[in-house]
Amino acid sequence: MTTVYDVTTWTVPGNPGATPYADIGLTINSIIADVKSQQTSQASKPGAVIYIPPGDYSLKTRVNVDISFLTIRGSGHGFTSLSIRYNAGNTSGWHEVNPGGSRIRVEKTDGNGDAFRVFRTGDPRLSSIIFENFCLDGVSFGSNQNSYLNGKTGIRFDSANDACRVEGVGMVYLEHGLVVKDTDALSVSGNFLAECGSCIELTGSGQASKVTDNLIGAGFVGFSIFAEGHMGLLVTGNNVFPRGRSSVHFKNSTRSAITANRFHAFYPGMVNFEGSCTENLVASNHFLRQMEPFDPLKPYNNGLDDLFGLVHVAGNSNTVTGNHFSYDVPAGSVNPPSQPPTMVLVASGNNNFIATNNTVASVPVRTVVLDAATAGTKVLDCGTSAEFQAHGSPHSFRATP
Amino acid sequence: MTTVYDVTTWTVPGNPGATPYADIGLTINSIIADVKSQQTSQASKPGAVIYIPPGDYSLKTRVNVDISFLTIRGSGHGFTSLSIRYNAGNTSGWHEVNPGGSRIRVEKTDGNGDAFRVFRTGDPRLSSIIFENFCLDGVSFGSNQNSYLNGKTGIRFDSANDACRVEGVGMVYLEHGLVVKDTDALSVSGNFLAECGSCIELTGSGQASKVTDNLIGAGFVGFSIFAEGHMGLLVTGNNVFPRGRSSVHFKNSTRSAITANRFHAFYPGMVNFEGSCTENLVASNHFLRQMEPFDPLKPYNNGLDDLFGLVHVAGNSNTVTGNHFSYDVPAGSVNPPSQPPTMVLVASGNNNFIATNNTVASVPVRTVVLDAATAGTKVLDCGTSAEFQAHGSPHSFRATP
Amino acid sequence: MTTVYDVTTWTVPGNPGATPYADIGLTINSIIADVKSQQTSQASKPGAVIYIPPGDYSLKTRVNVDISFLTIRGSGHGFTSLSIRYNAGNTSGWHEVNPGGSRIRVEKTDGNGDAFRVFRTGDPRLSSIIFENFCLDGVSFGSNQNSYLNGKTGIRFDSANDACRVEGVGMVYLEHGLVVKDTDALSVSGNFLAECGSCIELTGSGQASKVTDNLIGAGFVGFSIFAEGHMGLLVTGNNVFPRGRSSVHFKNSTRSAITANRFHAFYPGMVNFEGSCTENLVASNHFLRQMEPFDPLKPYNNGLDDLFGLVHVAGNSNTVTGNHFSYDVPAGSVNPPSQPPTMVLVASGNNNFIATNNTVASVPVRTVVLDAATAGTKVLDCGTSAEFQAHGSPHSFRATP
Repeated sequence: MTTVYDVTTWTVPGNPGATPYADIGLTINSIIADVKSQQTSQASKPGAVIYIPPGDYSLKTRVNVDISFLTIRGSGHGFTSLSIRYNAGNTSGWHEVNPGGSRIRVEKTDGNGDAFRVFRTGDPRLSSIIFENFCLDGVSFGSNQNSYLNGKTGIRFDSANDACRVEGVGMVYLEHGLVVKDTDALSVSGNFLAECGSCIELTGSGQASKVTDNLIGAGFVGFSIFAEGHMGLLVTGNNVFPRGRSSVHFKNSTRSAITANRFHAFYPGMVNFEGSCTENLVASNHFLRQMEPFDPLKPYNNGLDDLFGLVHVAGNSNTVTGNHFSYDVPAGSVNPPSQPPTMVLVASGNNNFIATNNTVASVPVRTVVLDAATAGTKVLDCGTSAEFQAHGSPHSFRATP
Repeated sequence: MTTVYDVTTWTVPGNPGATPYADIGLTINSIIADVKSQQTSQASKPGAVIYIPPGDYSLKTRVNVDISFLTIRGSGHGFTSLSIRYNAGNTSGWHEVNPGGSRIRVEKTDGNGDAFRVFRTGDPRLSSIIFENFCLDGVSFGSNQNSYLNGKTGIRFDSANDACRVEGVGMVYLEHGLVVKDTDALSVSGNFLAECGSCIELTGSGQASKVTDNLIGAGFVGFSIFAEGHMGLLVTGNNVFPRGRSSVHFKNSTRSAITANRFHAFYPGMVNFEGSCTENLVASNHFLRQMEPFDPLKPYNNGLDDLFGLVHVAGNSNTVTGNHFSYDVPAGSVNPPSQPPTMVLVASGNNNFIATNNTVASVPVRTVVLDAATAGTKVLDCGTSAEFQAHGSPHSFRATP
Repeated sequence: MTTVYDVTTWTVPGNPGATPYADIGLTINSIIADVKSQQTSQASKPGAVIYIPPGDYSLKTRVNVDISFLTIRGSGHGFTSLSIRYNAGNTSGWHEVNPGGSRIRVEKTDGNGDAFRVFRTGDPRLSSIIFENFCLDGVSFGSNQNSYLNGKTGIRFDSANDACRVEGVGMVYLEHGLVVKDTDALSVSGNFLAECGSCIELTGSGQASKVTDNLIGAGFVGFSIFAEGHMGLLVTGNNVFPRGRSSVHFKNSTRSAITANRFHAFYPGMVNFEGSCTENLVASNHFLRQMEPFDPLKPYNNGLDDLFGLVHVAGNSNTVTGNHFSYDVPAGSVNPPSQPPTMVLVASGNNNFIATNNTVASVPVRTVVLDAATAGTKVLDCGTSAEFQAHGSPHSFRATP
């Protein structure tokens, strides 16, 4: 009785003609059914590992994961840039044109947008499910290959979960890469998630999770890293490149840390707090804001103007310290024109603390702006008095000498 | 002559009835003996990999690792919360009740508390031993499932070692998770170590090691991360949740870094320096201190009061900068009552540097307190004059404007 | 048609006597040829995984990787210190004397210095090649085992590449460990690279890459981490020990981050900016500078004197903040004698920002020195006026109170 499965050697009971190349979803669901049929004792359900060797697999049927302790593992995240390819013109002379590794083509032909759905009712929460080192390829964004829209999601955790991992995975050309609802102690590490509408969306609620050591870059339509209702999230050591509408977006999240990341964006709102986000730390990050240099994507942006802030704070008692901001936008491209762009905007909330951030800019900027709905902000060593603007709120300010 | 072993296919010589399900310790020791019998040339002892497929294994006999270059590897850290289960009442309707993955039940029936012991005399030190991606389950804390006491240790390195790794491992319900003595260039990364009395204890001495990218939470009796006599330890990118008696505890350790972590605790003494700890950096961490919310564990704490400091500095020339402190304790729960809790206590030592830390608190606090045994401390931009207290020592202080 | 290869079971077509023990290069090249012969459709070239079990393999023939999506993977980075062994005298009583794990002895007998070369012309760039968890052993530095010179390179990426990974690899006694040219979104993580002349050299150009979570220590002749012409490189979470001539060396690199690392060195120039390096962030790092304590290596150094700076800044608009410097050199060893050593030297460039760095030193030091070729530097809270020196440039200075 094995607990180590290989999709290429599994025979689907009653369907001997089925192959993982034709529909790996069917194969994996069949393997999960086998695991469940073998592991029927409440006291002993150790799960299994399902191995996906390098290869090209279609996924036509959604995989339904409803057991704990399942590892789905490949050999190779297999990313290659489809954006470059689709915008390259004639690629007939190319060595290869598609992603590779343990590559799953998400075809969404069963009417479900999700390639993998993790879901179970009852107790306990699903625990320690692992997705590791394979490739989820959305194949195409349809008639407009720069739209980032195709209704496909790579992996969706759809019920509360604990101690799960998504590590070393590659995703490309999915409208949504990884969506995780109501998570506890999640690890999202070492992945390559790029050219997806959104890359990581932590929805509903969550606590004590980490998003670390990833290479990430979403599309202009979505999020590179999104967290809603989270407490104690650690976002550290990521290299987040364009062109997500933000680098990190928190919605009603609290007591979390965004530290030691490198962020690069083509729009304002790189770290964006929505709703009320409180007591978060944004420290030791490198921010770079430039203009979109790639002709096919120049028509697009996230709709925000330069007064929105590279960091947009909404909520009380956040700490923003020790960050570097590089703002490199030609004067003629600043929007609204002739107004100094804002590096850190405190849009609302009390007692935020903004200290020892350094800004380098191609045009005169406001390093910190306090909107009228703020109070008690402290701003220390973040630029000159001319670079600071406070709209009527009580606040403290110490100019950089 | 293979160097790739699978515990489920190995036959113990002279004991054909032995199985890893009955005693994986016996199996692994037999495999190690085989490796040693095959690799007898001093010039060529490359070691081996011992694979533990997902499954439920008992460990009755301690594993003795006395060869370099051995990898013991599973598929799945397999954590599930035993604390929730044991405190949940009737779990008869649950899907599953035990941890899983490549799960080893530590039964400690041979009189040894350690499941794995790494030990060798002579030269050179044991090198490059790897524990990876399996589960060590202590099963039970006995009559009081909230005691964190059962005399069981997951992995103990008991002689000097170099370049070893513990990565991706899960541990639960062990009194001691990982104990490593006299280590050099150790990597403890990507693990899930929770609901153990202590999680990581680096004892004796050590240098140039790292504890990175882990999810960790010890019990109130012990340590989440402990380091004794260490030099050049890097603790970064960890999410350390309750309820260890500390988040990071240094004893006579020096020139080490605690950076970019997220710490959450229910007691004072989150970063705790014991003895003389010098020239360490504590930077860009997020600290959250709350009260224990879980009824079964409300009776317990670490015995420290709120004057001890969330960060407790003892020793010279440490740097504490760029941290965020959230202190969220109802006024009636502060201990001693009616005294302002301390965020950073410099208990002893000269020339410590405390700068640009921000505090958010539910009650009036002292952000920095200097005890009488200190001298030459510099405190910059860590709060108001009213939040600062110095007991007679020469010091520098600049209030946050 | 498999995509999972094992070097120990592969038969080289036309050369049945060939074994990976005699020449793993020949074996791997033969496997790559097989992959190419099987994967001929432009639309489907998913690559393969080549597994190297623990063992001792010679590499006599250079491996030529010219396909995307190839994983070369072992079980065990296998580091052991050859420096200790070669300087230990009689080791006849030792348990073992060589590195292990999946150990490849780089013998360089085909006239090529590189063990692995990744190279392809045409489009697209090679993508998602992975080197993982094996050992590259240069065996010897010849007549002077402390020379760090033998003309051997472990892995060289020699044409533009994207989304590649080098993870969990061990390297020892190579003149050059990893050399990567013109890289995009590279991940170098979790490796053990030590006792090599240089460890990581990112040459030519590069962007959006990361060097994270490694244990690294080069020789006095070379670089621990070198990056040339890079933009958006993230160097975080590394423990870099001696004795490289620098810990991190940037040449004409920009908008990159060096954060939350631990650096230990025996010479000045620990973070060294060459040419023009602009808009970089150096934050939350721990620096320790001592004298070489190991007799056999005391004759050697990197040729720089103590006025060069532990951090040497050349270029505009860099940020150096929140770092700890420990300088522990006896007064009699300072060079030039009787002059205060420099912690941060701004050698050239405008508008650099140096703030809230703390220094602990065994002798009186200059914490920050501004050379004459600088302008507009801001220095805040980095020491006393006596510890600061500015050679005629306009600048701002605020002494630590």
